[in-house]
Amino acid sequence: MGRKVTVVGCGVIGTSIAMAAARISDAVSGWDSDSGVLSRSAAASGLAPATGIAEAVGGADLVFVCTPIGSIPRLVAEVLRSASGAVVADVGSTKSSVVGEVRSLAAAEDLGRFVGSHPMGGSERSGPDAASASLLDGAVWVLTPTQDTEAASAERLETWVSSVGAKPVRMDPVKHDRVVALVSHLPQVVSTSLMGLAAREHEGVPETLLLAAGGFRDLTRLAASNPGLWADILRSNREELTAAIDLFVAELGELRATLVSGSAEDLRRTLEEATRARLALAARPQVKAGVAIVQVPVPDRPGALAELTAALSARGVNIEDLQIVHSPEGGRGTVHLTLAGAEVGPATEAARAGGFEVLRIA
Amino acid sequence: MGRKVTVVGCGVIGTSIAMAAARISDAVSGWDSDSGVLSRSAAASGLAPATGIAEAVGGADLVFVCTPIGSIPRLVAEVLRSASGAVVADVGSTKSSVVGEVRSLAAAEDLGRFVGSHPMGGSERSGPDAASASLLDGAVWVLTPTQDTEAASAERLETWVSSVGAKPVRMDPVKHDRVVALVSHLPQVVSTSLMGLAAREHEGVPETLLLAAGGFRDLTRLAASNPGLWADILRSNREELTAAIDLFVAELGELRATLVSGSAEDLRRTLEEATRARLALAARPQVKAGVAIVQVPVPDRPGALAELTAALSARGVNIEDLQIVHSPEGGRGTVHLTLAGAEVGPATEAARAGGFEVLRIA
Repeated sequence: MGRKVTVVGCGVIGTSIAMAAARISDAVSGWDSDSGVLSRSAAASGLAPATGIAEAVGGADLVFVCTPIGSIPRLVAEVLRSASGAVVADVGSTKSSVVGEVRSLAAAEDLGRFVGSHPMGGSERSGPDAASASLLDGAVWVLTPTQDTEAASAERLETWVSSVGAKPVRMDPVKHDRVVALVSHLPQVVSTSLMGLAAREHEGVPETLLLAAGGFRDLTRLAASNPGLWADILRSNREELTAAIDLFVAELGELRATLVSGSAEDLRRTLEEATRARLALAARPQVKAGVAIVQVPVPDRPGALAELTAALSARGVNIEDLQIVHSPEGGRGTVHLTLAGAEVGPATEAARAGGFEVLRIA
Repeated sequence: MGRKVTVVGCGVIGTSIAMAAARISDAVSGWDSDSGVLSRSAAASGLAPATGIAEAVGGADLVFVCTPIGSIPRLVAEVLRSASGAVVADVGSTKSSVVGEVRSLAAAEDLGRFVGSHPMGGSERSGPDAASASLLDGAVWVLTPTQDTEAASAERLETWVSSVGAKPVRMDPVKHDRVVALVSHLPQVVSTSLMGLAAREHEGVPETLLLAAGGFRDLTRLAASNPGLWADILRSNREELTAAIDLFVAELGELRATLVSGSAEDLRRTLEEATRARLALAARPQVKAGVAIVQVPVPDRPGALAELTAALSARGVNIEDLQIVHSPEGGRGTVHLTLAGAEVGPATEAARAGGFEVLRIA
């Protein structure tokens, strides 16, 4: 499985892929145009640094192009040429423009080995030092094969993505771009605008950022993202992003109208719909065959969760997934345990014997 | 210092104030219209539960009214009447309307003992079980005395706020409301609208929330806040909030124009200004840090998670949120722990002492 994997571009994603590859591959090599980045990536991940692309991809089965979005198409075309036996994937944040430009730059006979892709892990941080082998654990990794792509190439990438612990999802490039405009690029723009506005107001009213607490920090964390990388990403998805901004401004406008002329009940209902959706998002279980969700209310104090997990552990129950979901009304939190079907009985007994209530099995 | 402190309204803020008061006062009492909330608050904080307001405030030196915003003015007036020797403060999220209504409801001779205030800690969670003695540690606590307020009353509250570890900041009520509209109420509205929009789009395109990663979750965390409480808060600051929404939409519009017709360099500059401001905010020492994510890889076997949570529990670390991110092929999973900023150090030490690797702190 991926006897030799190469990453071209050794930033946070490239280095994280190299770390993940090291767990399952015989060899991992890498190249970056910045020799400092390359050596930090090699130190962090153990990849073999190469002096050029041709050397890096020699003998590779799978190559990931992980450079800033503007340089991806040219590099994919070059790698396809240099590594004649390899499946080549990019990891760019938008797909229509990348896939289209690769089609016009690469040799027609090489296109079958190219698979556009986008791992949805990530961080507002960049560079090899922000990399982590766990960045891709459980992350959705979108694959956007087209009619040019050989079925075997897409399957090979898909198998590899699963084997490093990410979740492959196939999607049309245009649909991908529309969805990420809404859930990734729009949040970036909103975060940037909120931070920019508050910083400007702060110049006139120096108490402004003094009063900025946790909520403001949550909303502006993305604003710290790498400006050069993100300028290119946003521009590469300009049309879909513009449409997403317009939808968002319309949504804000509706809330504004409710605030100005609606009843308290109208406004509460608007907030309530979003609350419900956000709690459902927090509780969204990983969809897997043969698993069940067991809900256990636990008091919100140090040690309560430890008592629960210890009770389950004493029975030999393996917890596949665990999420703490806090009640918006305050009060107790609820733990959602994802368990193999056969573990539900023992887990329920163990939790009850430990003094916990088992609310509901879904 | 505060020989007897009373909290009227025992939700997350009232209970947290009671916990803080317990460290420096001789007696702490409380009352809540919901007897279940009152008894949970008493259990959590040790406050003496009272059967009515008059009983609760008897002999009190300092009373905090911590109820939902709509009931604050009436209760402040009642407490001023019942507790003739006490300084009375409210902790409502907006100040002009509260201060104005108290002025019209309370007896003129009592107004000198009232000080409007607003501690800037808080959380998207509510209720006594979300309270924490550390919620106010290092938090900015705005005081909005007016010309009605006796200097001695404001000074007494100011000294008390400092003595529990928060940072008192005096501000005009109108200025306070303008600033919180921007850094607290606008983020709430933006978070709600983004979550509402994405939820609606998800109904048509079911991949939408599948691709929602960490950035989207950061921006929509506030959307899980208590809808009833927030509807009242937003309405009480309607004018300032409407102006803040308009400023924000104009800011977004400028970014949109740069995206559509500006150069890559123009867009990069816009992002860069926000990045610089956000990094400066992150370095700002006087504001309480928000939550942090600590990632801990754990082997996929029964008991591993129990060992981790037991190690944290033994150090008294309270886990705000916990998610297991799993490799579907088995092998290691990674636990993402959400902790209050102050818990990161102890949690990291405890996990390492327990034999776990701490991968990354975000």
